[in-house]
Amino acid sequence: MPDQFTASGSLPAHAPAPITVTVSGAAGHIAYSLLWQVAQGQVFGPEQPVEFRLLEVPGAIRATEGVVMELEDSALPLLAGVDVTADPARAFDGAQAAFLCGAKARHKGEERADLLAANAGIFRAQGEAIAGHADSDIRVLVVGNPANTNAMIAARAADGVPPERFNALMRLDHNRSISLLAGHLGVLPTAIERVVVWGNHSTTQFADLTYATVGGTPIAELVDSRWLAEAFRPRVAGRGAEIIDVRGLSSAASAAAAAVDHMRDWVRGSRGWATAAVCSSGEYGTEPGLFTGLPTYARDGRWHVVEGLEVGPEQRTLIDASVAELRRERDMLRDLFPRR
Amino acid sequence: MPDQFTASGSLPAHAPAPITVTVSGAAGHIAYSLLWQVAQGQVFGPEQPVEFRLLEVPGAIRATEGVVMELEDSALPLLAGVDVTADPARAFDGAQAAFLCGAKARHKGEERADLLAANAGIFRAQGEAIAGHADSDIRVLVVGNPANTNAMIAARAADGVPPERFNALMRLDHNRSISLLAGHLGVLPTAIERVVVWGNHSTTQFADLTYATVGGTPIAELVDSRWLAEAFRPRVAGRGAEIIDVRGLSSAASAAAAAVDHMRDWVRGSRGWATAAVCSSGEYGTEPGLFTGLPTYARDGRWHVVEGLEVGPEQRTLIDASVAELRRERDMLRDLFPRR
Repeated sequence: MPDQFTASGSLPAHAPAPITVTVSGAAGHIAYSLLWQVAQGQVFGPEQPVEFRLLEVPGAIRATEGVVMELEDSALPLLAGVDVTADPARAFDGAQAAFLCGAKARHKGEERADLLAANAGIFRAQGEAIAGHADSDIRVLVVGNPANTNAMIAARAADGVPPERFNALMRLDHNRSISLLAGHLGVLPTAIERVVVWGNHSTTQFADLTYATVGGTPIAELVDSRWLAEAFRPRVAGRGAEIIDVRGLSSAASAAAAAVDHMRDWVRGSRGWATAAVCSSGEYGTEPGLFTGLPTYARDGRWHVVEGLEVGPEQRTLIDASVAELRRERDMLRDLFPRR
Repeated sequence: MPDQFTASGSLPAHAPAPITVTVSGAAGHIAYSLLWQVAQGQVFGPEQPVEFRLLEVPGAIRATEGVVMELEDSALPLLAGVDVTADPARAFDGAQAAFLCGAKARHKGEERADLLAANAGIFRAQGEAIAGHADSDIRVLVVGNPANTNAMIAARAADGVPPERFNALMRLDHNRSISLLAGHLGVLPTAIERVVVWGNHSTTQFADLTYATVGGTPIAELVDSRWLAEAFRPRVAGRGAEIIDVRGLSSAASAAAAAVDHMRDWVRGSRGWATAAVCSSGEYGTEPGLFTGLPTYARDGRWHVVEGLEVGPEQRTLIDASVAELRRERDMLRDLFPRR
């Protein structure tokens, strides 16, 4: 890029200081949607300037520079600057929010353990860079899969950064649950409350409508348990594959929109419940230290786990199965990270 | 799609009626960015529900349904419904705004005249469908290239619809001009005013900074004419090709953001000048009836051409050259559309 895109010192006097936002996997499809949504004020509000730090692997730096050219060409009033780098230390320098979209995808014939290990290497390095360079106010949202375990790795590597500063994205599963239910009942998504997706962002996840209401009416009065078990839950869990089949490409804009919803709520508060994968403290019999989808709401800049819910035997079985998968993912990495 | 995504009658009582928005080329890259930006309130505001009519060719209907699944999965509060069709009459039924992104791309070895003719067929059919089915308040923004001539074809085919209801997108060229100038001077894009891009959305366009100011200071005091002629203008005109070279893909998110800017300003008013390609009434020696980039601003729901500007001899030459290209495009189609 012959022209450097910086504009420091040129913001209107009344504008707040820009928020530094790091995005990894910046040349990827999710980031390509996410960056515009963030720069148009969807996360931090229509008056809050942002500054992007775009992190990519060396082989994708040139493509990232192409994305920066398009960001420039959009003349976005809230975009105060963009930096592109392959160096995590530079990417997280002063970062106040991070969307970690970059992850190694599984290739044919590759073992799951190899995939986990490759990603653990990436997220450990990023966790260390966050500990060393990010703002103390940092909020890290892991989008790249396996997101829950990647978030755990990054959080463990980030010495001195409280684990609640790390989340994994399960808002897409949450939104998918709401949209499928809304479509089934012929209501708007906004009428639906108290949805939770427990466990791992994978096919073992448990999209749970036990507590859900539609316009205040309990879901149990509106749908039968057979539809939940045979249609709803498998379809939410398999939605990613369904979209690849129909669209011919994996979900990107909807993942970006979910990441926007998650970070916006984290910063500005949620309207009721909104599933986040947070570091479990053992709530509802989940295993402490694993990053688990839980019934959460955001207030005062942090996620709170909803307290006092009754969990029935079928729920127990399904929650335990997904947590068991998270435990297996962690255990596969034990040899690689003997530190804890 | 097993579940139909409709939610009629379910909007909150206080919400305004949804605006019907038609998007053609709905499975394409520009629409993939545009749909979320529109459904997040960037065009019609954060309180205004929208309903999408997605138009695609039969071969892309399935991919479009995949996009709809992702829209559903985003649980967007303002999205009141989505319909997918290959039938222009259905796509434009009651449409109040239309983004025409779908166009036939030029293939290797194909003549420009063939490309123009193929697109003329598409946009004539859409113009007729707009005349027959759209709301009388319709605003049509043509994004698909050759955008200016496509807009002219659609407007001519739309019997009874005033030509000012049709525009072609030149806001991307406008935004690119602002961003390149901002980068050169190290200022924010918002400091720059009174830019105009005359003529055709093609390499003959004339990105003109004669009247431009930066923080109120005339541009002539800040940049020299050699930089304008040798660096600025060629780079704006060649920016699309530059992005393909660097990013490896053509501009999509920035085109979508420009389309959002254009339609938002058209509906809600512009902050100062903002280039739109409108049906010329002969302003500044341009040819009446050609859709031409002109110095415009939006107020009270329509574009106004800035009056009373002095045009010097160099400007005259450059404006005339781009208008001449628009005339040639029209003349190539004369045999196909002998009606006028």
